Amino acid sequence: MNRGLLIVLSGPSGVGKGTVCTQLRQKQSELIYSVSATTRTPRQGEIEGINYFFKSREQFQDMIARDALLEYAEYVGNYYGTPRDFVERMLDSGKDVILEIEVQGALKVKEKFAEGVFIFLLPPSLDVLKQRITGRGTENSDVIDHRMSVAVDEMNLIRYYDYAVVNDEIEAACHRIQSIITAEHCRKERFMAGFDAFKATTEKA
Amino acid sequence: MNRGLLIVLSGPSGVGKGTVCTQLRQKQSELIYSVSATTRTPRQGEIEGINYFFKSREQFQDMIARDALLEYAEYVGNYYGTPRDFVERMLDSGKDVILEIEVQGALKVKEKFAEGVFIFLLPPSLDVLKQRITGRGTENSDVIDHRMSVAVDEMNLIRYYDYAVVNDEIEAACHRIQSIITAEHCRKERFMAGFDAFKATTEKA
Repeated sequence: MNRGLLIVLSGPSGVGKGTVCTQLRQKQSELIYSVSATTRTPRQGEIEGINYFFKSREQFQDMIARDALLEYAEYVGNYYGTPRDFVERMLDSGKDVILEIEVQGALKVKEKFAEGVFIFLLPPSLDVLKQRITGRGTENSDVIDHRMSVAVDEMNLIRYYDYAVVNDEIEAACHRIQSIITAEHCRKERFMAGFDAFKATTEKA
Repeated sequence: MNRGLLIVLSGPSGVGKGTVCTQLRQKQSELIYSVSATTRTPRQGEIEGINYFFKSREQFQDMIARDALLEYAEYVGNYYGTPRDFVERMLDSGKDVILEIEVQGALKVKEKFAEGVFIFLLPPSLDVLKQRITGRGTENSDVIDHRMSVAVDEMNLIRYYDYAVVNDEIEAACHRIQSIITAEHCRKERFMAGFDAFKATTEKA
């Protein structure tokens, strides 16, 4: 059986990563969502192993020490990270895993898991991104300008990714990502790994 | 406008290149079929520029001398080849071009047009390929054994291709090839070519 693929979906804040990822999982139910570990307290209704792997601070620091995380970050006093073990088990069982993550986190994953498929989600234009950020309401123009400047800096990191997918329309973006997954499964390198077994089918002929 | 892609579809004799290519063009009418040049006499109903570009032997040899062919071969006394100019014009106008060609011809194209997308079509197993070759009738077992041995040699050339697509079922094979075309259009390198123009959209924001 062929090993699964780790699909890393990233892009600037406001581009619609979460919406695209949710839609993709609905359309492609066999796609496994990478479950994060966190030290924050579970909220009402959150289930261990589905929403998060809930860890104590000591457990999390032990995972860091054992290099058991593909990436991690501290945010408002809590750790969040991607357990390597969960991803590896799913890939070994032939399942594709999708990891939705912000731009810096994706680059950390790339350091530890270069064989992943790194997809950068883009807005159709920077105008549209600004509208989406502004459309969330509440923020004043300084905050919006700051976010836009961060987004432009992040977009320069696209050079480290494999694919650029424009999120002009959710259905179209999902279709492009599904095509990328199918195409990556057809890459010659993946076929070559099982080529000797394939050629042996002539013996039976 | 983005430049089109040259999709080179190849694979051993009997694998079903022609059937898959015909089906693909029906499903994706905007895909342009690369028209070959030949010195053979037009058959009833064949149209210049649609089925072939019909050339005199002198004209064809002049094209060879001018390096105007992506590949060519002589077969039963006639020349056959792929005019570069037709392909380039289509790509420049943003259209994707598909070239269906045998394995050796595809490798010649790669020498002159490395930026093409090279897809190798495979049978589900060598058993199935043997059945398909045998199923054509008429051939004796020496001919079949020879064809199988050529097919296995050709399959070793898959290492020079980008993708391996198994033709287990025509619809599935077409879906994989369509996915490859969509994914290749999303490659980061293609996006980067227009990245400065994209970033300039912030000026208008």
